[in-house]
This record gives sequence, structure tokens and C-alpha cells, in this order.
Amino acid sequence: MTDKIYGRDIEPGQVYQLGEYTVEKDELVEYARKWDPQGFHIDEDIAAASPYGGLIASGIHSFAIMQRLSVIGVYDNWAVIAGKEVRDIKFLRPVRPGDVITGTVTVSELEFDDRNRALVRIITELTVDGKAVLRTDTASLLHAAPTK
Amino acid sequence: MTDKIYGRDIEPGQVYQLGEYTVEKDELVEYARKWDPQGFHIDEDIAAASPYGGLIASGIHSFAIMQRLSVIGVYDNWAVIAGKEVRDIKFLRPVRPGDVITGTVTVSELEFDDRNRALVRIITELTVDGKAVLRTDTASLLHAAPTK
Repeated sequence: MTDKIYGRDIEPGQVYQLGEYTVEKDELVEYARKWDPQGFHIDEDIAAASPYGGLIASGIHSFAIMQRLSVIGVYDNWAVIAGKEVRDIKFLRPVRPGDVITGTVTVSELEFDDRNRALVRIITELTVDGKAVLRTDTASLLHAAPTK
Repeated sequence: MTDKIYGRDIEPGQVYQLGEYTVEKDELVEYARKWDPQGFHIDEDIAAASPYGGLIASGIHSFAIMQRLSVIGVYDNWAVIAGKEVRDIKFLRPVRPGDVITGTVTVSELEFDDRNRALVRIITELTVDGKAVLRTDTASLLHAAPTK
């Protein structure tokens, strides 16, 4: 088991490379049917007639993929107390069936309080074929150091 | 079939009441296993020892529930082109197994462009037992009026 990474171990400017996630059409449609059942996410005919010319993933799905890649690649080793805030999500380009998503997590700010906690602000960018599709600005609360 | 609601039909200050969604424990854990596999979302023992004292839903899950209730209750009748931006998500209180979520969608701003489109800014608040658990500030692009 890897030793946990605490707020005191993190520095602004640190960049983490994320793994890959392929967006399969079935999953794209299934996710949207449950969580974001708008025609252009779930119906190929409506999607074909839309400005995007085909099915596009729900932004919530892209955001969930971002979180999965980030937890597996980065946060799983961090002493996270909880996600605190999402300050911004930009949907830069549509995500389509078959897209292979990867990206980076960059630590942008660190703020310590007097309760052994660190608020870590993070910029995450997801890309497909090197082009940004999603950019998020989030903040999570970590233990600043081990307790006792 | 209901007539679509266009940007021209919407006014800042309009408030829509959302339906209800019950967060079952199995779904809470299953969602987090796939999209946000952090211990305090998926493991009852880790969760019990956490500052929250028990399982809490992934914020992405709460955000997805927000979108589901909003699409079914509001956006399904709107001439939406696409979600554009999430300017802010605040996780105000933890969401726990068994919680019954409802809330409101409030139109906060409308901006028309010269391409028959309206950018609609929306404040959505989810509540459990009358207490706010999630507040989002999002913007979606709508057709301003029917084309032809």
C-alpha cells in the first residue's frame, strides 16, 4: 500500500498525467438515458439533425469520466476528506462515441487552515487527440498531515 | 406533445419546482464505484470512520441527480441546443442513503445573440428535508425562436 499523500506533501504547479478512458456508444447512451435524457444525447436521429450532427456525451458524463480518471490516477493516494467545490466546468468540444479521453491534473493553489486541513485547488483538463474537451476548476479538502 | 419553449418565452426570475428522487444506498455505492471510487463513498467501514460518520454520495452523483430532475421537470420542454457552462457547484451538505432530493430551478439571466440563440443562466438548488444540499450556477444555449 502506498503511503498517503497529505496537503503538506503537495505543491502548486505539480502536474499529474491521467490514464485513458474510451467512451463507448452504448455507455454514452445508457448514461444519458438515466441522468441527462435529452434527445441529442440518447436518440441517433435527433442527434443527427442537431448542430453537432451526431450523438454527443452528456457533460455530466464527461465530468464523471474526469473524476474517475482523477481518483484512479491521483486522488486515491491523497488523504482526501471531501470534494468541496467546483468553481467552473467548461465544455470546450463535444465528446463523441469512440473518443479516447485522457488529460492532466494540475495543482493551482494550496491553503492551510488551523484544523490540520489543506484546501487544494485543482485545474483538470481532459483531451481527445490532443484537443481539450473539458476543463474544470475544483477544490478538495485534504488532511494537511497525519493525525498523531 | 407539448410545444417547445424557446428563449423568447423565458424570463429571468421564473422558478420551476422539481420532482423527487430517492437516493438508494445500492445506487449510491454503485455510482461511486464506477465514477468516484473513494473509500468514504464506497466502503461502509471507511465511511463510518470519516468525519461524516457514514456513507455519503459522490458530488458527481448529486450533480447527475440534479440534471435528471431538471431535464425531466424543465429542460425536456425547452429548445435546448447544448449545455454550455457550469460556473459553480457548491456541495452544501452531504447526501446520504435514503435521502429524498427535490429542489428548484430559477432562471437568473438571459442573453440573446444575433444567431437566434439565447444563453440562459440558471440557479438550481437541491434540498433534503428543506435544507439545501447542492447549489449550481449553469448556463445553457437555447434556440431563441423556432427556425422558419
